[in-house]
Amino acid sequence: MDNQDSNKNNNLEYNFTYNFSQWYNDVIQLADLAENSDVRGCMILKPYGYSIWENIQTILNAKIKSTGAKNVYFPLFIPKSYFCKEATHVNGFAKECAIVTHYRLKSDGNNINIDENAKLEEEYIVRPTSETIIWNTFKKWIKSYRDLPLKINQWANVCRWEMRTRPFLRTSEFLWQEGHTAHIDINEAKSTAIEMLDIYYNFGKEYLAIPFIKGIKSDNEKFAGADETYTLEALMQDGKALQCGTSHLLGKNFSKAFDVKYLSTDNKLEYVYGTSWGISTRLIGALIMAHGDKKGLIIPPNIASIQVVIIQISNDNNVQEYSKFIENKLIEAKVLVKVDNRDYLRPGFKFNEWEIKGVPIRINIGKKDVENNTVEIIRRDTNEKINIPSNNIIPTINEILVKIQTNLYNNALNFRQQHTFEVDNYEEFKTKIKNKCGLIISPWDGTTETELKIKEETQATVRCIPFENNDSIINNDGKCIYTNNKSKYKAIFAINY
Amino acid sequence: MDNQDSNKNNNLEYNFTYNFSQWYNDVIQLADLAENSDVRGCMILKPYGYSIWENIQTILNAKIKSTGAKNVYFPLFIPKSYFCKEATHVNGFAKECAIVTHYRLKSDGNNINIDENAKLEEEYIVRPTSETIIWNTFKKWIKSYRDLPLKINQWANVCRWEMRTRPFLRTSEFLWQEGHTAHIDINEAKSTAIEMLDIYYNFGKEYLAIPFIKGIKSDNEKFAGADETYTLEALMQDGKALQCGTSHLLGKNFSKAFDVKYLSTDNKLEYVYGTSWGISTRLIGALIMAHGDKKGLIIPPNIASIQVVIIQISNDNNVQEYSKFIENKLIEAKVLVKVDNRDYLRPGFKFNEWEIKGVPIRINIGKKDVENNTVEIIRRDTNEKINIPSNNIIPTINEILVKIQTNLYNNALNFRQQHTFEVDNYEEFKTKIKNKCGLIISPWDGTTETELKIKEETQATVRCIPFENNDSIINNDGKCIYTNNKSKYKAIFAINY
Repeated sequence: MDNQDSNKNNNLEYNFTYNFSQWYNDVIQLADLAENSDVRGCMILKPYGYSIWENIQTILNAKIKSTGAKNVYFPLFIPKSYFCKEATHVNGFAKECAIVTHYRLKSDGNNINIDENAKLEEEYIVRPTSETIIWNTFKKWIKSYRDLPLKINQWANVCRWEMRTRPFLRTSEFLWQEGHTAHIDINEAKSTAIEMLDIYYNFGKEYLAIPFIKGIKSDNEKFAGADETYTLEALMQDGKALQCGTSHLLGKNFSKAFDVKYLSTDNKLEYVYGTSWGISTRLIGALIMAHGDKKGLIIPPNIASIQVVIIQISNDNNVQEYSKFIENKLIEAKVLVKVDNRDYLRPGFKFNEWEIKGVPIRINIGKKDVENNTVEIIRRDTNEKINIPSNNIIPTINEILVKIQTNLYNNALNFRQQHTFEVDNYEEFKTKIKNKCGLIISPWDGTTETELKIKEETQATVRCIPFENNDSIINNDGKCIYTNNKSKYKAIFAINY
Repeated sequence: MDNQDSNKNNNLEYNFTYNFSQWYNDVIQLADLAENSDVRGCMILKPYGYSIWENIQTILNAKIKSTGAKNVYFPLFIPKSYFCKEATHVNGFAKECAIVTHYRLKSDGNNINIDENAKLEEEYIVRPTSETIIWNTFKKWIKSYRDLPLKINQWANVCRWEMRTRPFLRTSEFLWQEGHTAHIDINEAKSTAIEMLDIYYNFGKEYLAIPFIKGIKSDNEKFAGADETYTLEALMQDGKALQCGTSHLLGKNFSKAFDVKYLSTDNKLEYVYGTSWGISTRLIGALIMAHGDKKGLIIPPNIASIQVVIIQISNDNNVQEYSKFIENKLIEAKVLVKVDNRDYLRPGFKFNEWEIKGVPIRINIGKKDVENNTVEIIRRDTNEKINIPSNNIIPTINEILVKIQTNLYNNALNFRQQHTFEVDNYEEFKTKIKNKCGLIISPWDGTTETELKIKEETQATVRCIPFENNDSIINNDGKCIYTNNKSKYKAIFAINY
C-alpha cells in the first residue's frame, strides 16, 4: 500500500512538469473530487468536489440576486421546434445534443426494450442552454415597459454531447448557472452584460484567486445567437488558456425569433434586447490547473470547504482531547475545520492525503504540543511551518488564511505576466505557440478568414480582444501578424481547452 | 380590468368550496407561483414559487447535513442496463420514463431532424430516481466496514412520464432531494430511514405548519425495490390525502442487484443494507392545499420568502419616506419585507394581489400614519387589523408572525381531527369516502387483494398504517372492514392525489 502510494505521488510530481494532462486526471481522482461514470462523458461529483461547487453557488447566488435577478426553474426538455427558431443558435448546438424520442419501456420476455408505441410526436432536446424555452416564455411575461427590465437566473444541469470530454472542463452533462435578461434599450442590455462579467471577474479575484482577463470574443468564437460575447479567460500552468465564464449581448436575435415585444411609453410595440450569462462546474477545473502543484491541489481559503485540517500525531487520549479543544476554538471563530481522527492510518499517510486535497492549512498535534500548549501550523502553499502557543491560534490562522489567498492570486498573476508575450512576427508567434509559452498578444486584421488560417497552422485561436490596454481597437497603426494588412485589434491568441 | 379581477376573485371564492381542483389551478396562476409549459406535463417555476422551494432547500439541506450525509451529484442519464438490474424497480418505473436514443440533429434542407447515424448503442433513461446509478457506484466506494455507514444526498431534477399531471403534485419533471445510505446492519439502516422521516416530519410541523401522519406503506403502495416504505401523509382541505415524503428501507435488494459487499471486522464479505429518502416540489402543492382559503394562498411565516408587505396608500413623498423608514427597521430585525411601490396601481388592487399571494402580514401606510407615527397591520390568516405606534413595530410583527405560524398549524391539525373517522362498517366507509369526508381509519386484514377490491369499489387506497395509536398492529381483535376476516392492522384509507 505504501509503495503504491509513493508511486502515485512520484507520478504526480513527474507529471506536473512533463504530463500536465495526466497530472490533472490523477489529481482529480486522488483528491476525491470526481470520478468518471459509465455514462458517456459524464462524471460523478464526489462530496469533496461537490462541496467546492456548493461554495461557488452560495457566493455567486447572493451576488446575482443583488443585481435584481430572481431565480426560476424552466423545463429540462426543449421541443425541437423551439430549438430551431433561431437559425444561428440551432446550428451551434444541433450537432451535439441528447434527444428524447420515447417515453416508455416494455418487457419482451427476458429483455426490456423501448416501446415503439410510445414515440413522442415531437422530439425533445435535453437543454444545452435555455434561451429558446425562456424566450418563448418571455413572450407571455413581457407586455409593457413596466415589465422591463426582466432578470431571471437558474441553477441547472445542461447537456452537450461533445466529442472529447475531460472532467470539469468538458462533460456531456454539467452543472451551471444561466442568467437571462430583457431590456428596453441596448445600452442597458449591454451594461447588464458587462455588470455580470464584472461580477464573475471579481468573484475570480476574491474567491478563486484567479486573475481573469476580460475581453470580447471574435465573431468565430462568439455564442451562437449573440451579437457580442464577453468572456473571461485564464491562463493555466501548462500554458493553455481556459474560458471561465461568458456574458452575451443577444441584441434582438431572440426577441425577433420568439416575437417578444413590449408596449412602450409612446404606445408602440417594440422588440426587447436580451442578454444571457453563465458560469459552470468548469470553474473547478480552472481552480485545479491555476493553483495545483507537484503535491496535488491547492484550494484558495475563500472557496475551500475545509480551510484547516487537524491531524493527531498520536492516538493518546490527551492528544484527542486537546485536538477537540483546538477544533472548538476554530469552529467558534468560523474557520472551516476538520479533524482527521482515523486512528488506523499513519500520520504520514494523512499528511499526504490532505496535501493532495489542497487544504490550505494543516495543524499537527502531538504529545509535546499538549505539554507545551502549542500547535504546529503548516501552510500548504509555501510549506512554511511554525509552532505557536494555542492562545494565539485564531488571529494566526486568520492571518495565514489571508496570506495564502493573496499569495495564490499573486502567484497566478505573476505566472500569467511571465507567460504573456507581445509578438508582431509570425515566425516568433509560431515558435512561442509550439513551445506552449502561454498567451500571445498580436495585431490581427479582425477577419475570420485570418483567424481560421492561424488556427489551422498553429492550433492557436483568438481567445479574446482584451478590454484593457487595447487602444488599438480604435486606432491601431500595426500590421496583422498573419496577412500584414492593417491590423484592427490587438488580440490574445493561445492554445485553449 | 377591475371587473375582470373581481370576477376572478369571485371564482376563487366560489371554487374554494365547490371546485377545489379549479381553485388550486387558479391560485397557482394568480399568485404567480408557476405556469404550464408546452413541454408535456412540465411546469415553469416562476420567481415567487421558486423562492419557496429555495427556502425548503436551505432549511432541509442543513438538517440533512447534520445527520452526516454529504451532497454529491450523479449523472442525469442512467444506462438502460443498470435500470433493469433490480427487477421490481424496473417494473415500477419502466412504463413512465423519458428515453434518450440519439445525440445529434442534422439539417435536411429546410427541416432539422434526428440524425439516424447518431444513434446511441445503449439507450439512456432520464433518471426517475437514482438508486441504480448510485448503487452501481457504491460498489466502488464500499470496500470495508470502515467505509460504512455511507450517507449521500443530491438535489436534482427527475423525470416520470405520468399520464395525468398537475402542477407541483405530479409533473413529468420535478425537483427533489434524494438521499441514499448504506449500512452494516439492518437496525442501523432502519433507524436512519426513520431518522430522515422524523426530520421531514419536524420540518412539516415547524416550517410548513402541516401536521403529517407518520406511517408505513402497504406492500401494494411501497417503493419499487424497497422492503419497507415509511411515509408522511397529510390531509388537504378537499378531504383528499397527499403523500408528502417517503423514506425507504431497501434491505439488501440493491446491494445484491449491484453486488455491493464490504469486508467485515471478521474478514468476511457481506452485503450492505440500504435506505433512500426524498421530498420534492410537491411540498409546495401541500402548502397551497393545506392553508389556502377563499382569497388565495396563505404562506406560513417560517417558509415565506416575503413575510411582510408594505403598501403605500398614497404616493405622497412623506409616505414614501416613512415606508422606507419602516422597511429599514424590519430589514434590520431580519424580517423578510417587501415594499410594493408600484404607483400606477390602486391600493385595493395591491391588497388583493398580496392576499392572493398569501403574504402573512400586510402593513398599510397612509398620510395619517405619517402624522401619527403609526402603522396599520393586517393579518392574512384572521384578517385582524391593528394600528400601532411605529416604535412598537418589531416586537409586534415578530409576535404576530409566531401567532400566524401557530394558528396555521393548529387550524390544519383541527381540520384533520375533524375529518378523521374510525369506521368499522363497510357501508359507512363507502358513504364517508363518497362524501369526501377525509381520512378513514378502519381494520384491514392486511392483504393486497382486499386493498385492491376496496380501491376498485370506492377509489380509496391505504395511505398508511400509522405508527401511532396503532396497538392493533400487534394485537387486534377487530374484523377486516371488507372481508370480516381477522384484522391485521388499523389502516388509514382515503382518496389520494
